[in-house]
Amino acid sequence: MMPSKDAKKETFYIDKDKQFNRWYERVLIEADIMDKRYPIKGMPIFSAYGYHMHNAMMKILEKEWDKLGIDKVQFPILIPELYLKREAQHLAGFSPEVFWVTEGGSKSLEAKSALRPTSETAIYSMFSLWVRSFRDLPLKVHQTCCVYRYETKDTLPLIRAREIYWNEGHTCHATREDALQMLENAWASYLYLLNEHLGVYGKRLRRPEWDKFAGAEHTDVLDCVLPSGKVLQSVGAHYLGQIFAKSFDIHFLTDKNTNEHAYMTCFGVSTRMLASCLATHGDNKGLILPSSIAKYQVVIVPLLYKGKEEMCVEAGKKWKSTLTAANIPCYLDDSEKNPGEKYYYWEMKGVPIRMEVGPRDVENDQVCLVRRDTSEKHFEPSETVIAKIRSLLSNIDNNLRQKAKTKADSYVVTCKTLEEVIKVIETRGGFARIPYFSFDLDGKEGEKIIQEKTNAEIRGYDPTETIEPGMTCLVTGKPAKHWAYVAKSY
Amino acid sequence: MMPSKDAKKETFYIDKDKQFNRWYERVLIEADIMDKRYPIKGMPIFSAYGYHMHNAMMKILEKEWDKLGIDKVQFPILIPELYLKREAQHLAGFSPEVFWVTEGGSKSLEAKSALRPTSETAIYSMFSLWVRSFRDLPLKVHQTCCVYRYETKDTLPLIRAREIYWNEGHTCHATREDALQMLENAWASYLYLLNEHLGVYGKRLRRPEWDKFAGAEHTDVLDCVLPSGKVLQSVGAHYLGQIFAKSFDIHFLTDKNTNEHAYMTCFGVSTRMLASCLATHGDNKGLILPSSIAKYQVVIVPLLYKGKEEMCVEAGKKWKSTLTAANIPCYLDDSEKNPGEKYYYWEMKGVPIRMEVGPRDVENDQVCLVRRDTSEKHFEPSETVIAKIRSLLSNIDNNLRQKAKTKADSYVVTCKTLEEVIKVIETRGGFARIPYFSFDLDGKEGEKIIQEKTNAEIRGYDPTETIEPGMTCLVTGKPAKHWAYVAKSY
Repeated sequence: MMPSKDAKKETFYIDKDKQFNRWYERVLIEADIMDKRYPIKGMPIFSAYGYHMHNAMMKILEKEWDKLGIDKVQFPILIPELYLKREAQHLAGFSPEVFWVTEGGSKSLEAKSALRPTSETAIYSMFSLWVRSFRDLPLKVHQTCCVYRYETKDTLPLIRAREIYWNEGHTCHATREDALQMLENAWASYLYLLNEHLGVYGKRLRRPEWDKFAGAEHTDVLDCVLPSGKVLQSVGAHYLGQIFAKSFDIHFLTDKNTNEHAYMTCFGVSTRMLASCLATHGDNKGLILPSSIAKYQVVIVPLLYKGKEEMCVEAGKKWKSTLTAANIPCYLDDSEKNPGEKYYYWEMKGVPIRMEVGPRDVENDQVCLVRRDTSEKHFEPSETVIAKIRSLLSNIDNNLRQKAKTKADSYVVTCKTLEEVIKVIETRGGFARIPYFSFDLDGKEGEKIIQEKTNAEIRGYDPTETIEPGMTCLVTGKPAKHWAYVAKSY
Repeated sequence: MMPSKDAKKETFYIDKDKQFNRWYERVLIEADIMDKRYPIKGMPIFSAYGYHMHNAMMKILEKEWDKLGIDKVQFPILIPELYLKREAQHLAGFSPEVFWVTEGGSKSLEAKSALRPTSETAIYSMFSLWVRSFRDLPLKVHQTCCVYRYETKDTLPLIRAREIYWNEGHTCHATREDALQMLENAWASYLYLLNEHLGVYGKRLRRPEWDKFAGAEHTDVLDCVLPSGKVLQSVGAHYLGQIFAKSFDIHFLTDKNTNEHAYMTCFGVSTRMLASCLATHGDNKGLILPSSIAKYQVVIVPLLYKGKEEMCVEAGKKWKSTLTAANIPCYLDDSEKNPGEKYYYWEMKGVPIRMEVGPRDVENDQVCLVRRDTSEKHFEPSETVIAKIRSLLSNIDNNLRQKAKTKADSYVVTCKTLEEVIKVIETRGGFARIPYFSFDLDGKEGEKIIQEKTNAEIRGYDPTETIEPGMTCLVTGKPAKHWAYVAKSY
């Protein structure tokens, strides 16, 4: 779309750290990531600028899945009620949030169907037909689609929606080890996407028993701290063991001619990754985009000095073809707005590099490149512009990564008393790390106390971390089992 | 997925011309394009092998839209009932086929919403907010998604489904000329995809008034004749004039400061393109795929001679990496099946080239390449294999295109009497071309006679064709206005 129609004359300036919620909601509108004016609650329109970013992430991820031999498929959106009922825990987890299709044409349907809230029950019903022998294993599929949840809490674009854009993987294996290895491979791909491409860092945690995915043996997540101090779950990966295999009758003939249920996994990411990315890198002037998801890596702004407009616009057009030919996605803003307006607008949109083309630049056979992240200016001779853009993009991405990594690390504070926990949660936010006695169901009692006193919750623990023997649980005084990560969440 | 699980020992052999319906339904199952066992009528699962082809087409098309400046967006799946009611003709066209969402969680929703049967009403409601001045025009968006229709006729995978995978474009323009030009540009892209990439040819027709898209000024389609003799609409492109703009209040301030309603278009293609492609090129042994949509362009089959298995499998693996490095998608079938079974299986799946690697080939530093379309064998020295594969793929694509073009041309037969029409329709099928008096609403009466006598219908006319003055309508004896194309359809 043309920038003219949503460009504002006033500049975007919101103190991101002090007013994060306002910053987030405004910037999604101003930068045209989503349009919330569509009249169905929790279902905004994904505008071209935002949808490009989501698709860029999905493409990177799908390439990873392809390398891991995970086939891209697509299951129907409708799930028969019967299927949802097959796994009792799972149904309990999802049925309050399901949209139901009950009519077709002018008639009531014989059986109602759900808009998929997640696809386990649909996919596993077919897995039971597809898996016969150990030769069919591992069976690995994924799909990029939307899931639907009748979310009753306040919706928030990209974070809490009724139409959730996501990618989900589902696998069957002959052994527990193979299934767990699959999950580690999936984690490597997720972290490659999040850390390397998006510059987003978080804490990988195992959820307590009382907070795991409905029907899983265990659930691991990546929790990212947003500038509000609240954490956002940005990855979910679940070891399902044989629970679904038993409910859905997914078994196979082993190479020893015995019959066994499959060992299963599922894992998924949604637009919450995009939310984490936008929230992490932006500043008071608006978004700052990592190069690999930016619809435009460079915006070209010809400076329209009187009498020399044509010369600069022509040079801008030439640069547009040169950059396009070099596979650098770019936008030429030759609208009638003044340069200042254009600068503010494209800064707010987060374009990594601005290329200014003024009359003197044309005469000197150079351009001026301005970094979005540092505002540094570089006058660059024409013949080295392409190489310079590439190195600037790489520098910008590195800078975003490093700042994000440092900040993420700073969001974990080890606490020795509940008062310290309260202080962490109520001031800067992020994780309060405390010794805790149990992540089994009996641990839920202690969490109630934490919730009452701090308004935060136990997000989980890191199974690879050890805790010194002799340490006691900060809530109950019992021997501590692990470090618990306490935080407020979205 | 592994080929093992759906491989059949028996060969696929169905006389495609004599038993096309059986051929089509069987080959979709055997080649694992879709899995119809999912228990919701008209909503099969898109398996990896078939979904790859659909996505390959969508990628080609999206690149075209990108070149034309059509932005990729995504609108919500739910459309408020109110929106559907805004354009009376349009509602009449779609309301009998709408799935309704009426419940969320355990409660009835205040207002029911439709699963989008097509997106005009959702998108145009937002266009009315997005279009303000001539500077916002042209406004061009597209989306790749599914639409949902409570289809009551017999469903048929890829052709008549309740969940329809498609791509739809929607545009607003300042003038009628600009809108019509947009449609011609879209046609050029569609024909590029269909003719050049898929080797599919059809007849572009303008639908009669009584058969146009609900709410359009006129509808142009591409009708492709399948081997059954029935035609399948594979492209639909609609000039909407100002009809929707008036219903949805889409107007703009012109550069002369007047207010005008936008001139609009919409256009779409679905999996029917894939159906046409598979139906066109296959033979009695199964599918034959054009290279640009084939998940695997080459299948590598090591010949497992006793004692020399390892040597051939190793060579096969090496070829797999070599081809992959050369960006030639391939599959190494090193399963335990015998070569014959593998040949039949991969022929049925339509892989353009089979590479056989036997002990003698390894010794002679060569491979044997077999074309799927002609069964021609080529023993090729290793050092020129990549170049040979590329030239064979190009030859195969050319051959498929030429045969398809010739066949499509042969499916238009000009008729002078209704008896001739009946003969064409009842024997080989395709189009009977007849002089006809009117494509306005009054022409519908004559079509009733055609339908009664021939069981076929008027699919439309070609506005670029002229008819000699003095010719009379074959049905009414009135002066003929155009050549009408009569055919049975899906």
